[in-house]
Amino acid sequence: MHAGLRYTKLDLGMIVSEKPASCAAVYTTSHFLAAPLVVTQESIEKEKILQAIVVNSACANACTGEQGYQDALKMRSLAAAKMGIPEHHVAVASTGVIGEFMQMEKIESGIGKLAIGKAAEDAKDFQTAILTTDTVMKSCCYSAEIDGITVSMGGLAKGSGMIHPNMATMLAFLTTDANISSEHLTAALKDVTNTTFNQITVDGDTSTNDMVLVLANGSAENQPLNPDHPDWAVFVELLKESCASLAKQIARDGEGATKLIEISVAGAMSDEEARMIGKQIAGSNLVKTAVYGADANWGRIIGAIGQSQAKVNPKTVDISLGEITMLKGSTPVTFDENQAREYLMNDKVEIFVDLHVGKGKGMAWGCDLSYDYVKINASYRT
Amino acid sequence: MHAGLRYTKLDLGMIVSEKPASCAAVYTTSHFLAAPLVVTQESIEKEKILQAIVVNSACANACTGEQGYQDALKMRSLAAAKMGIPEHHVAVASTGVIGEFMQMEKIESGIGKLAIGKAAEDAKDFQTAILTTDTVMKSCCYSAEIDGITVSMGGLAKGSGMIHPNMATMLAFLTTDANISSEHLTAALKDVTNTTFNQITVDGDTSTNDMVLVLANGSAENQPLNPDHPDWAVFVELLKESCASLAKQIARDGEGATKLIEISVAGAMSDEEARMIGKQIAGSNLVKTAVYGADANWGRIIGAIGQSQAKVNPKTVDISLGEITMLKGSTPVTFDENQAREYLMNDKVEIFVDLHVGKGKGMAWGCDLSYDYVKINASYRT
Repeated sequence: MHAGLRYTKLDLGMIVSEKPASCAAVYTTSHFLAAPLVVTQESIEKEKILQAIVVNSACANACTGEQGYQDALKMRSLAAAKMGIPEHHVAVASTGVIGEFMQMEKIESGIGKLAIGKAAEDAKDFQTAILTTDTVMKSCCYSAEIDGITVSMGGLAKGSGMIHPNMATMLAFLTTDANISSEHLTAALKDVTNTTFNQITVDGDTSTNDMVLVLANGSAENQPLNPDHPDWAVFVELLKESCASLAKQIARDGEGATKLIEISVAGAMSDEEARMIGKQIAGSNLVKTAVYGADANWGRIIGAIGQSQAKVNPKTVDISLGEITMLKGSTPVTFDENQAREYLMNDKVEIFVDLHVGKGKGMAWGCDLSYDYVKINASYRT
Repeated sequence: MHAGLRYTKLDLGMIVSEKPASCAAVYTTSHFLAAPLVVTQESIEKEKILQAIVVNSACANACTGEQGYQDALKMRSLAAAKMGIPEHHVAVASTGVIGEFMQMEKIESGIGKLAIGKAAEDAKDFQTAILTTDTVMKSCCYSAEIDGITVSMGGLAKGSGMIHPNMATMLAFLTTDANISSEHLTAALKDVTNTTFNQITVDGDTSTNDMVLVLANGSAENQPLNPDHPDWAVFVELLKESCASLAKQIARDGEGATKLIEISVAGAMSDEEARMIGKQIAGSNLVKTAVYGADANWGRIIGAIGQSQAKVNPKTVDISLGEITMLKGSTPVTFDENQAREYLMNDKVEIFVDLHVGKGKGMAWGCDLSYDYVKINASYRT
């Protein structure tokens, strides 16, 4: 709905489960955890059960001190009263400008008027309400067979600027009818987050408000999932597919982005080091501008790899852009500049790196850096 | 001189001392140390004496394997022959595109024709020859009294893109007539580099070719400098002033930059943590674009501090832009938006942060991120 926090765009919404659900959450690593995240942590801590998530855009309610915390509590209690559920069954999320106070009258009147619906249109309205500088909605829907039962998972997300490492003005909400305890769901989410959401970068900045929340309400009535369940891997894959899909949609919609950049790193000492190098490349302004300009300047990829903390043998690195090999054993390979330029015109650009020092593999996603990134960010508040 | 590596700009030059000099060097931390740096290290290792530095722009001679190494050796021997000095008294530096081979006929013919002069015009020609995307020359000249004798120090540098942490397509050469051993000069340089060159950032990328070189030929005939010399601190300050001046000139001339951003951090757990946070702020694309757009969005400064590894108390942070306080004890302070916007229009913007968790202090320098940064880097090679 439009609560009036923004001029005309929808700016307030709720996700509600038909019944109390198991839950798992991953939060930003910023020192300045925004008030809604603190309140959400308190909710989950109490019983590890959630039934609703209330979200607003326009104001992040971050760096707002005690008043911000009270506002987030109030937002939670308004949502709980609206749905007739305990306060600690409600999670709160906010995204927008840092350091401004919530307009609580608008929030209060907005939550009061919120109409909860089941139609596809309602889901779209919710997605729209949480967007900020995003240009498209991000959502996914997958299913898998567990105990011979079809289990579904739906997800949606927002985020385009301040997207880096460990969550950053990124909100992602996933819901599933799988039957799984909060404990096992949390373990699965942490694992999956490391190879998906934590591997995207738009501008290297980490926000105060990022959060991934998963609700699992058990309606599918499968046997409780845990690592010993024969279909555990199926469930983890379902979660991973969902998170990876949302993560890539976020990277592709980076502020001002015209292209998705996908980096695959092989031959690292460990999967972790492979991911680290992938993200270093995805985060390099020089790589990002070169891709924007369709300039096959692999020297910038070498520059990014070179500054990594990971183990690298400066004599054994291979680099390819799509199917075009540019560097083999750290030695330049002659390639067709026109073919490379044409490849870089695609809206998805794949960079392959093989370090040849170990067996670690990993991926990362980012986007190019365009004039529009500067335009959007030189006047975000105004 | 113009050796023909570039269309019309000067592209080759040498610095020569009248006599063999003590020396100190600091190199990039990239895994992919470019060939000229390897050769320079070999020169210095042998006797810790240098008398000449030969430098070219246009081609970085990086990621060029064995041939690149042979080319750098050849460049060194050509310069040594030209000056009639031992090969290991020559340092070699290159800057430009990574992964292309040196055009050695042009280098050979160029070095042959180089005319070594003492005029101010000659120094300007040298400075011009080492620039790439730089828009202005960077130089400094300071002097100090040591043993009652006037000791001079001259410096010049290049660098505007790929400028980050630990050296990055940044070349800086300093010469002094001070009498000091290579051992003590090296210790002083390492110390000074940590608070000057290593505290500037333009785009967060580290190059394969960065190097700071200091030559001290002892012509001033002061008593040999060492930490016990009564004027040791005077000399270190002379070196620091010179390095800080060059570092700030580099930051101000960052690719596409319109403003110098100076960050002062106080109240950190240690000087190192203060510097770390300063650099995190200077390196944030979101801070850089906000400064470009004269948008007093201190939330982005909080975002940058928040993701630092340094110790931060989320409740005690003060932030000021120039003399305008924006955040006090992590709580927003009402300020005059117009005054802040006007302040951000200056070509030097100062950001002050006090963490109030310790006594550590540090500074960092960077520049804003403009449309021109994207323009320059989307088509650097073409």
